[in-house]
Order: sequence, then C-alpha cells, then structure tokens
Amino acid sequence: MDLDDLLVPLRATCASMPPLVAMQLELRHFDGQRLYVYAPLAANVNDKGSAFGGSLSGLMTIAGWALATLKLQQAGLAADVYVAASSVRYRAPLLNDLHAQAWLEPDADWADFIDTFGRLGKARVPLLAQVLLPEGGVAAELSGRYVALAKG
Amino acid sequence: MDLDDLLVPLRATCASMPPLVAMQLELRHFDGQRLYVYAPLAANVNDKGSAFGGSLSGLMTIAGWALATLKLQQAGLAADVYVAASSVRYRAPLLNDLHAQAWLEPDADWADFIDTFGRLGKARVPLLAQVLLPEGGVAAELSGRYVALAKG
Repeated sequence: MDLDDLLVPLRATCASMPPLVAMQLELRHFDGQRLYVYAPLAANVNDKGSAFGGSLSGLMTIAGWALATLKLQQAGLAADVYVAASSVRYRAPLLNDLHAQAWLEPDADWADFIDTFGRLGKARVPLLAQVLLPEGGVAAELSGRYVALAKG
Repeated sequence: MDLDDLLVPLRATCASMPPLVAMQLELRHFDGQRLYVYAPLAANVNDKGSAFGGSLSGLMTIAGWALATLKLQQAGLAADVYVAASSVRYRAPLLNDLHAQAWLEPDADWADFIDTFGRLGKARVPLLAQVLLPEGGVAAELSGRYVALAKG
C-alpha cells in the first residue's frame, strides 16, 4: 500500500473543518516518518504581506495532529487526537506559500505510544514541526504534545 | 475619547487579512487594560464539534497582537507588531463560540515597553491571553512574547 493512500480519510476529515477549508490546507505527503502539509500564502497573509502567525501555528498544529492520527491508523487503531500543549517560535517572516512538516520528537518512540494507547485507550506523544523558508532556514517551529483518546 | 474608538483602525486592518475574515474574528472591546476578541464556533469548528486548536491559538495570538498595537497607538506611536514566541495550553474542549481576552503579564510594564520603543524603535512585551468556557474555567491559555518594530 502506498503510504499516501493513508491520507485519503484524513483529507476528508480536513475537508469537513471550516477553518482548514478557509486556510486551503492540503495534506501533501507521508513518508512513514514525516507528514508534509501545505497552505497558500494568499489565504493566510497578514497586514504586512507575510504569513499570519496564527496560520503558521495552525498549519504546524494540524501537521502534528495528522501525523499522530496516521500512526494510529497504520496500527489499525481509531482515535480522537487532540493537541494538549504547544510552544511556537516565530523566527523569520515568510513571504511565500506555507510548507510545514511534522515528525516525532527524537527522544520519543512510536511503539510506546501505540502500545500505551492499545492498552489504556489513552496515550500522549510529543511531536515537532517546522515551516521552512524557501531560501533555507526556518520561518517557525513548534513543539507540541498530543493526546489520543479512544473514540466514543 | 471612548477607548473602543481606538479599535476602528485595527478593525480595518483585521478586515484586510483573509485568515481573520475566514475566522469571522471581531475585536469587541478594549477597557484600557484588556482586549476582548470574539469568533463564532461555526467558522472555527474541528472534526469533533469543538473549537479547532489552531483557531483558539490564532484568536489568542491576535488578541495579544491587537493589545500591543493599541497601547502603542494610544501613545501616538505607529509600529509593526509581530508575535515572536508563544506557549499554549489547551485545557478543555470548547463547544461554544470563542471569546478571548489578552492582558499584560503581571511582571511587565506598559510604560517600559512604550519608552523603549520610543527610544530604540524596537521593544518586546510579554502578554497573556485566555479563552474562557461559558460554564466557568479555561478552554485554552497563551503566554506570548510580542515585538514592535518602527514602521518602514
């Protein structure tokens, strides 16, 4: 199975969320470790012609949420995933479209997360995300903690 | 002068930003210390029927940005204000419209911020924001650091 096929149900979920439709957010690619998400500048621009901080933060928040959801889905588990906490650093203005990626915090382990969720119906996972500048460097970065709860 | 008259130019700025128009964000009230901001749930709902984390974060981010901008405006200073960093805790799902408020971190001082900006054309200020639950308690809270830069 192509890993990107896993994105299909998540894309439908995103299409049902008005704020993501307004951002014109696209789940672009999943390579098994990193999830790549995109949104055009025009729908996410601030009064200074650069990407709105709330959109940068929102895009990274969704990238992490989608990554945690996908990892559970790969393991055959259905969950409601929530962001519990996040810290964002805005490092440089972004004057181009928004490309975010999310991945697991290096000290953490997907197997622990999946195993804990399977046993308890609840688990936490720390994720990182960035929006890169086209010229190199980082526009913004997020460190977030996500919680998965058994559905229902 | 009614303090809420200060909101008029900021409302025009918000109306020029597509992501804030999509959120249906409204700058509601400024009492001299706190700024109150609103957005309807329908435009900011997630797949679970509660407020999208990115919208909660975005609304609080804007509340702080508008507060810092207003304080400079009250002092007769024009600035570009950016969010530099923020930490958000998501405490409880919000199933109603979003009401956020922002205020100065207790240890900080508006006079220092205004004075530093006036002298250097650059200043930082730490702000707090919350989205409250209608039944009491907090849906989400933000601690943010904002930077004001002289225009041009």
